[in-house]
Amino acid sequence: MAAQVPDPQQVKKDTYAFERSQLEGLMTKRFFYTQAFEIYGGVAGLYDYGPSGAALQTNLINHWRNHFVIEEDMLELDTTIMTLSDVLKTSGHVDKFADWMVKDTKTGEIYRADHMVENVLEARLQGDQEARAIEAGESPANSIAASNDKKTKKKAKSVAVKLEEDVKSTYHKILAQIDDYSGAQLAEVIKKYDLRAPGSGNEVSEPTEFNLMFESNIGPTGQTKGYLRPETAQGHFVNFERLLDFNNGRVPFASAQIGKSFRNEISPRAGLLRVREFVMAEIEHYVDPENKKHARFRDVENLVVPLLHRDVQKAGDTTLKQISIGDAVRSGMVDNETLGYFLGRIYLYLESIGIDTNRLRFRQHMENEMAHYASDCWDAELKTSYGWIECVGCADRSAYDLTMHSNRTKRDLVVQVPLKQPKVYQKYVANLNKKVLGPAFKKDAKLIEDTILNLDQTQLEALQKELDSGNASIQANDTKFPLTKDQVSVEYKTIKENVRSFTPNVIEPSFGIGRIFYALLEHSFWAREEDKDRGVLSLPPLVAPFKVLIVPISSNEQLSPLAQQISKRLRSLGIPSRIDDSNATIGRRYARNDELGTPFAVTIDFASVAKGTVTLRERDTTAQRIGSVDEVIDVVKQLCSGRLDWRGASQILPAYTGTQDVDA
Amino acid sequence: MAAQVPDPQQVKKDTYAFERSQLEGLMTKRFFYTQAFEIYGGVAGLYDYGPSGAALQTNLINHWRNHFVIEEDMLELDTTIMTLSDVLKTSGHVDKFADWMVKDTKTGEIYRADHMVENVLEARLQGDQEARAIEAGESPANSIAASNDKKTKKKAKSVAVKLEEDVKSTYHKILAQIDDYSGAQLAEVIKKYDLRAPGSGNEVSEPTEFNLMFESNIGPTGQTKGYLRPETAQGHFVNFERLLDFNNGRVPFASAQIGKSFRNEISPRAGLLRVREFVMAEIEHYVDPENKKHARFRDVENLVVPLLHRDVQKAGDTTLKQISIGDAVRSGMVDNETLGYFLGRIYLYLESIGIDTNRLRFRQHMENEMAHYASDCWDAELKTSYGWIECVGCADRSAYDLTMHSNRTKRDLVVQVPLKQPKVYQKYVANLNKKVLGPAFKKDAKLIEDTILNLDQTQLEALQKELDSGNASIQANDTKFPLTKDQVSVEYKTIKENVRSFTPNVIEPSFGIGRIFYALLEHSFWAREEDKDRGVLSLPPLVAPFKVLIVPISSNEQLSPLAQQISKRLRSLGIPSRIDDSNATIGRRYARNDELGTPFAVTIDFASVAKGTVTLRERDTTAQRIGSVDEVIDVVKQLCSGRLDWRGASQILPAYTGTQDVDA
Repeated sequence: MAAQVPDPQQVKKDTYAFERSQLEGLMTKRFFYTQAFEIYGGVAGLYDYGPSGAALQTNLINHWRNHFVIEEDMLELDTTIMTLSDVLKTSGHVDKFADWMVKDTKTGEIYRADHMVENVLEARLQGDQEARAIEAGESPANSIAASNDKKTKKKAKSVAVKLEEDVKSTYHKILAQIDDYSGAQLAEVIKKYDLRAPGSGNEVSEPTEFNLMFESNIGPTGQTKGYLRPETAQGHFVNFERLLDFNNGRVPFASAQIGKSFRNEISPRAGLLRVREFVMAEIEHYVDPENKKHARFRDVENLVVPLLHRDVQKAGDTTLKQISIGDAVRSGMVDNETLGYFLGRIYLYLESIGIDTNRLRFRQHMENEMAHYASDCWDAELKTSYGWIECVGCADRSAYDLTMHSNRTKRDLVVQVPLKQPKVYQKYVANLNKKVLGPAFKKDAKLIEDTILNLDQTQLEALQKELDSGNASIQANDTKFPLTKDQVSVEYKTIKENVRSFTPNVIEPSFGIGRIFYALLEHSFWAREEDKDRGVLSLPPLVAPFKVLIVPISSNEQLSPLAQQISKRLRSLGIPSRIDDSNATIGRRYARNDELGTPFAVTIDFASVAKGTVTLRERDTTAQRIGSVDEVIDVVKQLCSGRLDWRGASQILPAYTGTQDVDA
Repeated sequence: MAAQVPDPQQVKKDTYAFERSQLEGLMTKRFFYTQAFEIYGGVAGLYDYGPSGAALQTNLINHWRNHFVIEEDMLELDTTIMTLSDVLKTSGHVDKFADWMVKDTKTGEIYRADHMVENVLEARLQGDQEARAIEAGESPANSIAASNDKKTKKKAKSVAVKLEEDVKSTYHKILAQIDDYSGAQLAEVIKKYDLRAPGSGNEVSEPTEFNLMFESNIGPTGQTKGYLRPETAQGHFVNFERLLDFNNGRVPFASAQIGKSFRNEISPRAGLLRVREFVMAEIEHYVDPENKKHARFRDVENLVVPLLHRDVQKAGDTTLKQISIGDAVRSGMVDNETLGYFLGRIYLYLESIGIDTNRLRFRQHMENEMAHYASDCWDAELKTSYGWIECVGCADRSAYDLTMHSNRTKRDLVVQVPLKQPKVYQKYVANLNKKVLGPAFKKDAKLIEDTILNLDQTQLEALQKELDSGNASIQANDTKFPLTKDQVSVEYKTIKENVRSFTPNVIEPSFGIGRIFYALLEHSFWAREEDKDRGVLSLPPLVAPFKVLIVPISSNEQLSPLAQQISKRLRSLGIPSRIDDSNATIGRRYARNDELGTPFAVTIDFASVAKGTVTLRERDTTAQRIGSVDEVIDVVKQLCSGRLDWRGASQILPAYTGTQDVDA
């Protein structure tokens, strides 16, 4: 019997050509999400999640918590969104978390500078194509397509003008490098190629920097500035001491946090992929910089993942290498075991929630793309109709953040490991005689002391010699101060250390839950071949917003008590279900159900009342099986927990041969 | 055997006198929560939750979601924190969500005006007591106690000055009514009684209003103002149309949302009870204003709850009435079934997470305390060392919010119900002849049209008579415009309505999760009589951060594999556990465990390796039972799911009679 059962995985998507507008239509119709403050005209880059979207998001988060926090004993945090400006000054966000923008000099309209450059150059390149097509006697199809696109209000219109070959190749070169352009470079390009505001054609202002953090004041005095956090990471780092203490002073361990972060985009488009408020899930894994092995590495060692190495990218190629995590680490392609371990765990998470792994790749950052302190960084990218999109970053941030916070706050954010054998060595140490230094140098004394304490070993050795020769001095703030032996002495001292003290390195897998959410929807969406308007979301039971639809075949009052009873029993098993007792035809109700991604439907008809049987429908195949209420509930329970697949279910429940309630 | 087993509920707390500083010490030591940005000096009113606090909070939230959203088929939302200013203008927050503040005229220090008045008057009343005590030859104990309190830096110091009886009674009267004082009243009191800044004794400025919302700008132009939401409720209301559609156009239904809200307090103290960023869980239940019955009312009808009625409060009394929800609704004490239903559900939620129901009451708002649109409002208050604290509000907001948003956006936020029998009635209707009106009145035409359309039935009837008599006019903006029959006619028309259209009323249970979190900790905390320093958090397994501590009795490597194996098995059952293999003594590790509120400990000793037995320790009684690994895990599973209590567990597992690993 099982052999005749179509496999849900086979049925879906094979013949469907994705149309974004169809998915977007479904998203608002079934209230997965919608633009925020829609009845007030909406705000770009802000989205509200409705019942189906909120449930899907909760399921993604809960599974993330199980997969990472619970499974790996991570220390979860919930730190504040409102962040003291000093903290973000230290992390570099106050100075560097910015985009360049330009203003239309007449209308005042604002553009993100790099996007405007891209936009205008792309329009010119398209105009060139059109001009060439006209020359060749073809109709300029691209131009029409572009002008029909409702979303291109701010896009530059192409005009059929042919370009010189060298100009064309310069434009292509600029487009390839635009992400790395500084403000000065953007200004130069805008001036040199006379790039104008799309739409108006007016000149634009010089690029100015716009910090992407939402700013506010904490309390009424205006003296305490705060920002909405742009990432959850700093909330981990400022709590490092307490976390380490909670973990009995030992590394490695990881902290984790799930929560909202904010980014005040200049001009967000691209739907859920570029938003001003979003849910992140971040892990900060603290390791000994001298030992980045991972205790559970063998769990993922043989997992084969698609990697796009930086050397391949440098050669202008995008061919993926399918390689086991073990080989990738051993060959040095991936920097260390812990980083490799997390790549594997990220892959498994994405696979389990229903991401199409054929549209997943790990792309290594180029050297100039990484933060200067990072030692390696891989992005998990998912392919969508917008192209390959970074959904998870996985970076080795080295000791950067903890070092910066430690320097700023003068707190030792270090791990101390008892040494089995004390470490004995010699070094130069300066001894300051403050009682003499103070009166001798008065207001300069503090400066001189700090300067001496910051001397390195070579400088100390030299100072010792100078002091011995009676001819010592120290350079501080452009002034040379003479020093004598009674003020300061330098000693070559034997040091014995019983503990090793180090700032841990941090490996950070950072998930954009909203982006994963959107990519998953694209990967799950298809339409039935027999009716292209009937969309289906093939979400796995693990993450589907509702697991079971309960459908009384008619509004007859006899059927209602059984529907309630099944609903109650499913609830007691922790399986979210919905009753659809609307007046719509059964076919319409199934169709609505498919759009919500509900994997199973339990249908109640008069035979249910008479004989106690109900049918069980599978969403992707629309196949129906039949059984007693108890049998069907038991099968549903196993299907939802992942202990059974539809093929297995079909071996337990016989096929339903009735005709009354098949898909209309 | 069971008869000898002490009941955990009996053991705890009976003899313990609560000390807040002891609980607070435990909170930071075991990293439940800590002041945010501590290493940067901290920010008042912002708190970070550590691993134990975050886990407890997650459990409170997940159980809330099960108890309300899943159990009652609510439509969950996740709407943005960043809120368009227009929305909060409509809701009244931009104009009214403010506190009065005063400034020390010399130091510039800022005080919340009502708190300053309270503070100074209380200090004077205390000074009076001291003066009387001195007169009577007693030592002024209160004064010393107050000055020892570290948290009173900003508090006014009492000076032993005796007050006249009438002044004293005026002060008491002011203190009783201070919550209702307007800015002008506060100014008057400050002036009349010469109230000075606590600490400095300087004069203070006139009270000025400070809006409690954090303000920011959305996007780079500065033209779109946004606020961090002060509640999640508005996010529900602006999505009402989509929610109603999702529910097939029917009421009653409820939306629910769990998320962060913000309140830029002037000068927050009182720990977690008054914070600038907090998690709320809010339900908006939409009902037909003509039918506020609830389908599941009988589920809570017989539940007896402690109510503090407004009439009792008016009489200056605080005696609670223990009354069934059914009786409370039938007697009119509680306005309607739906409100009563939610009071019951709130009670059951709070009870299930471990709130001491002897320290829970529902207090009804006084008429002048409620928002003007509310028809009834009850607060679930929990008693803590800070007094009775509002933790859940449960208000009938009537149709206020939806009406306001509808008026502002011109969207019909209404429910339409088909009438079984069409409603037929007659009414006056004005017919405008715009082609004539326009040319006749030119720029005033629109005003005149709008005025006519807003006339009520009596006015229309009069207008009809005037038109018939040829002597009609209309008053608009202080001008009288003559009207003729060719411009406008009034008809007495028969109307047939097939649908009834209404704005639903909203009943809103609104939970402050952080306040519940804190009250729960106070209700759960106690110390062992034999050692007052050994704190215990008697959190129920349902919400305890970690359910099981796994304790290898020594660091011997033989014990580690079994610890890992038990940890893995518990994880696969979804039971969070922690291994404590630190070098601390077993007694210390149990003590740490008790402070974390972990209800059970599985101890592994050499008998475990030899015979496969482990012991199971219960936190509150410190009692230990013994069994095979399988038996113990099965008992733990049942204990955590609530199917078994400790008494039941003790019937399955025999008492442990060993002495090796008892509490030190």
